[in-house]
Amino acid sequence: MAQKPSIPKGTRDFSPIEVAKRNFIINTIKDQFKLFGFQPIETPSFENSETLMGKYGEEGDRLIFKILNSGDYLNKVDDVIYEAKDSFRMTSKISEKALRYDLTVPFARYVVQHQNEIDFPFKRFQIQPVWRADRPQKGRFREFYQCDADVVGSKSLLQEVDFITLYDAVFTKLNLKGVTIKLNNRKILSGIAEVIGASDKLIDFTVALDKLDKIGEDGVKKEMLGKGISEDAIEKVKPLFQFTGTTSEKIEKLRNMLASSQEGMQGVEELQFIVDAINKIPLKTAILDLDVTLARGLNYYTGAIFEVSAPDTVKMGSIGGGGRYDDLTGIFGLKDMSGVGISFGLDRIYLVLEELQLFPETVAPSTRALFINFGEVEALYCLSAVNKLRADGIVAELYPDSAKMKKQMGYANKRTIPFVVLAGTSEMNTKTFTVKNMESGTQEEVNFEELKLLLQ
Amino acid sequence: MAQKPSIPKGTRDFSPIEVAKRNFIINTIKDQFKLFGFQPIETPSFENSETLMGKYGEEGDRLIFKILNSGDYLNKVDDVIYEAKDSFRMTSKISEKALRYDLTVPFARYVVQHQNEIDFPFKRFQIQPVWRADRPQKGRFREFYQCDADVVGSKSLLQEVDFITLYDAVFTKLNLKGVTIKLNNRKILSGIAEVIGASDKLIDFTVALDKLDKIGEDGVKKEMLGKGISEDAIEKVKPLFQFTGTTSEKIEKLRNMLASSQEGMQGVEELQFIVDAINKIPLKTAILDLDVTLARGLNYYTGAIFEVSAPDTVKMGSIGGGGRYDDLTGIFGLKDMSGVGISFGLDRIYLVLEELQLFPETVAPSTRALFINFGEVEALYCLSAVNKLRADGIVAELYPDSAKMKKQMGYANKRTIPFVVLAGTSEMNTKTFTVKNMESGTQEEVNFEELKLLLQ
Repeated sequence: MAQKPSIPKGTRDFSPIEVAKRNFIINTIKDQFKLFGFQPIETPSFENSETLMGKYGEEGDRLIFKILNSGDYLNKVDDVIYEAKDSFRMTSKISEKALRYDLTVPFARYVVQHQNEIDFPFKRFQIQPVWRADRPQKGRFREFYQCDADVVGSKSLLQEVDFITLYDAVFTKLNLKGVTIKLNNRKILSGIAEVIGASDKLIDFTVALDKLDKIGEDGVKKEMLGKGISEDAIEKVKPLFQFTGTTSEKIEKLRNMLASSQEGMQGVEELQFIVDAINKIPLKTAILDLDVTLARGLNYYTGAIFEVSAPDTVKMGSIGGGGRYDDLTGIFGLKDMSGVGISFGLDRIYLVLEELQLFPETVAPSTRALFINFGEVEALYCLSAVNKLRADGIVAELYPDSAKMKKQMGYANKRTIPFVVLAGTSEMNTKTFTVKNMESGTQEEVNFEELKLLLQ
Repeated sequence: MAQKPSIPKGTRDFSPIEVAKRNFIINTIKDQFKLFGFQPIETPSFENSETLMGKYGEEGDRLIFKILNSGDYLNKVDDVIYEAKDSFRMTSKISEKALRYDLTVPFARYVVQHQNEIDFPFKRFQIQPVWRADRPQKGRFREFYQCDADVVGSKSLLQEVDFITLYDAVFTKLNLKGVTIKLNNRKILSGIAEVIGASDKLIDFTVALDKLDKIGEDGVKKEMLGKGISEDAIEKVKPLFQFTGTTSEKIEKLRNMLASSQEGMQGVEELQFIVDAINKIPLKTAILDLDVTLARGLNYYTGAIFEVSAPDTVKMGSIGGGGRYDDLTGIFGLKDMSGVGISFGLDRIYLVLEELQLFPETVAPSTRALFINFGEVEALYCLSAVNKLRADGIVAELYPDSAKMKKQMGYANKRTIPFVVLAGTSEMNTKTFTVKNMESGTQEEVNFEELKLLLQ
């Protein structure tokens, strides 16, 4: 019995035009990664489970796809454990490998494993799929690409500057105007929590602050109070609720607010350095904005935090993000390796470019000419020309069957091939070709050199 | 405790230079696929298990990597089945998805699922990793890339001609001389078996014949006798044991031998058509050779069979293969769709190019210039120049830390960066840069425009 074919939920087939559009984005990002001196690496799709487990929190562990051991895998399971029929405990007994969940942990593993072959600071980029057993929903998939660039082995803030410039360079090349690169610093958040005497409530505090956009000042205050942050403390962070003005004005506000916190002031200096440097370069397309509510990845970022928003005209979450993590490789035994990196959200950038109609019309390389097949002898005459055109870089095809003219022309039409070439006995005798322009409908008889010029 | 990092056996990390070399091959193949009018598709890394299971024989089923269901997967297993503790029966209860084993079955599934969006004949290429739980050994991996091009929806032999030309075009671009494209036809093998009255022993017969290279004429005869093929029958296929001569001579021998088999004669006519067409085109680099011992994939190929061997000077198995299968999509319910395709063996082609030193020296795009970091002010002066160079397509980097000169020069040296740029107070005052050529050791002071020209 024939099966009705389908694919697992949360996964996708990509048609030729979709592949072309995705590659347009990927290649634009890749070209800029290379221009900025990043080098590509690739890691295996699956890692040993112990490499991944415990690195993404409890929820992450659940969402990691595990690969079943091969062979008689149950045979190796202890009977007592087996009888418990406990999925959670069973997993590590019947599965030793797991699909990559992100590119950062495999990168950390790579750096530690190959540390003797690497010249630090090491600037690597990596564009590969990752898998997460998340509930699929609009714009969230179980298989998706990550496009990451990271530097490991330098604490210089010039890296942060470089990454902001890199974001700007990519969005400039994509012709995507109105992108905002939001910048914050973990030290600012820690400093604020310290100043208001709520260092132990840093997470609660930042989670509440992060909702300012959605629930407003009163909502945030209420949530903070609910989490046990005092009215007095909340009063101190009041300037954050109307955190407007130029970047310089914002930095001044922070400098005043955080004067008593050493860590906070260090965060202010870092922001100042980055902002000053960017002002000197400056950005071509994107807008740099300080956003003290930005707290993504707070559990591992230790310095700068980045998040990129799509232009306001498009309703879309962040299309990129990143930050600095002072101990990237410590989990694998290599201490004191500071890392900083950014990521591009391919799927969301795709949706933004689609909505704003920013994909170039020529994104899918179309066949330039279809040669009509009039039969065996004519076909061989054409095939020789087809191959000469290809050798000159022109995409040409011969229709494989001597089907009815209407069918062959219809095929060219459906595939929007701009030129059709016809060669029957008369053309063969004069070593010529009749070319039909499918848009204008005009046709002319030309020799091979003229044909080549016409199709170029 | 820090874990000693490692990766699963049979998988690989790829360093920047390895990625660059692999991409050199992949891009060369991809460019030719596109010139020949093939369009890219991508399918998910994992498929529903029922899409893959039963399509590759019993051994294939075993070698498919299965993905464990998420959540409390044991909860859904019937107690009776659970108590049997039978790995084989358990698998389908706790795993519904499996990693792609090749690109052909997912392609067939894609064609059936998207048949209403596709214009046939459909020429697609696909370059993606596949996974097999094979025992890893030299040159055999558990994760590896396949590079496939197939046409579905036409029975024309011009497709076979096109694929041979495509192989030739790729190996020409790779500058790999001495490649042999071996050609056979399933109908020839069936015809021979029919003529000698051993149609029921087609597999035994072809398996034995395939060993001619290794065990010689006597060995093959002995194996055939052992499989119950009569002495009389073996006498009839004697010409195959010294199957030498030009392609035309070989076809004549087959024509004589197979005169009484309709299927065999059809195979002869097909070979004749392909060989005649190729003689007219003709090939630039590769050699086309009839090889009647070639029987790869006999269980699914129905017409042409291809196999590509590396140059004789390199000890390496086949570096490519393919063939025609008359019922590609029947397993998914779409009947009468003839397909023909070829595959490139990326890993083996890599080893061949490495051994013959055919990778271009410029395969890994190196950073052209490293700007030395003398401190904050100088760094910002440099960073501005670095970004202008990048905008002009020149790969440039600023060393992120104002480390000792020796360390920075050593970094440029280790990464074989050809130019180092130095800019201190004096250069900043005159808006110039001192450039040092790392190979010759010479250095000169230039303005930005001169610097750009020098680095281009």
